[in-house]
Amino acid sequence: MNTKVVQDYYDEQVAYCYGCGRLNDNGLHIRTKWNGEEGICTFNPQPQHIAIPGFVYGGLIASLIDCHSIGTAAAAIYALENRPVDSQPALRYVTASLHVDYLRPTPLGPPLVLRARPTDIIDQGRRVYVACSVFADDIETCRGTVIAAKMPEKFLTGLTG
Amino acid sequence: MNTKVVQDYYDEQVAYCYGCGRLNDNGLHIRTKWNGEEGICTFNPQPQHIAIPGFVYGGLIASLIDCHSIGTAAAAIYALENRPVDSQPALRYVTASLHVDYLRPTPLGPPLVLRARPTDIIDQGRRVYVACSVFADDIETCRGTVIAAKMPEKFLTGLTG
Repeated sequence: MNTKVVQDYYDEQVAYCYGCGRLNDNGLHIRTKWNGEEGICTFNPQPQHIAIPGFVYGGLIASLIDCHSIGTAAAAIYALENRPVDSQPALRYVTASLHVDYLRPTPLGPPLVLRARPTDIIDQGRRVYVACSVFADDIETCRGTVIAAKMPEKFLTGLTG
Repeated sequence: MNTKVVQDYYDEQVAYCYGCGRLNDNGLHIRTKWNGEEGICTFNPQPQHIAIPGFVYGGLIASLIDCHSIGTAAAAIYALENRPVDSQPALRYVTASLHVDYLRPTPLGPPLVLRARPTDIIDQGRRVYVACSVFADDIETCRGTVIAAKMPEKFLTGLTG
């Protein structure tokens, strides 16, 4: 398995995301590894991340699915282009839509494992549909879908202005 | 406008939600007021709540839509039953599903205003469908839908065990 973390290679100016930015000191630091077929993420919710005592907050789960699916979209397109995640030009996606079905309560305690995979790639990767499941103790608790859209160049350019 | 905040009346054992629990010291403290037709929420994202510099993190927006829609579902059913939000038995909903369309980037700076309304009430309020829009400077930036499910009694009972 490729042990590179996709978010470690985001350009510096787009590495401040509260969910997955390595440079956001107060963020969640969601990390995505690509195993050739799926993006894998492991996350340990903190005690404050609860919906009700003993169970993980759904908004946190939505954040995990969001950032991990976005990272998976980038990893999948790097793979499709047969180049490593640390090659140029860097790929960066944003979220066009996010859907989460909460299948059952997610217990607070075990590490959460997210497995995400691209289900449809549109227009050479301009848009990537990603399906993502969340597991606690190997039980699937939530299932999500994300539409990832390639970040427009003007957006990146605008950041440096 | 009824100025009562729905979440102020959640039972103590279900008032620790990271998103909207008044008793979660490290939470977001999302607050819902019901004006008779809609649930209204105002929220000020913090500097760390960014996706990229200058723009609000989508996972935070998902959390806002989630908790505010859940609060709106409760408020709507209190209203349907023609009783105030501080009457018994207390109503508490959980999220069955969450969908967010990110229409345009949400600027960091202005307070975000969320307006949510029930679009369908199933089986005397066992399930409530809620539509929610997010505005920054009166411009709609995101649109969400939530399916809110009444929290099972056994769940509440289980918490005290």
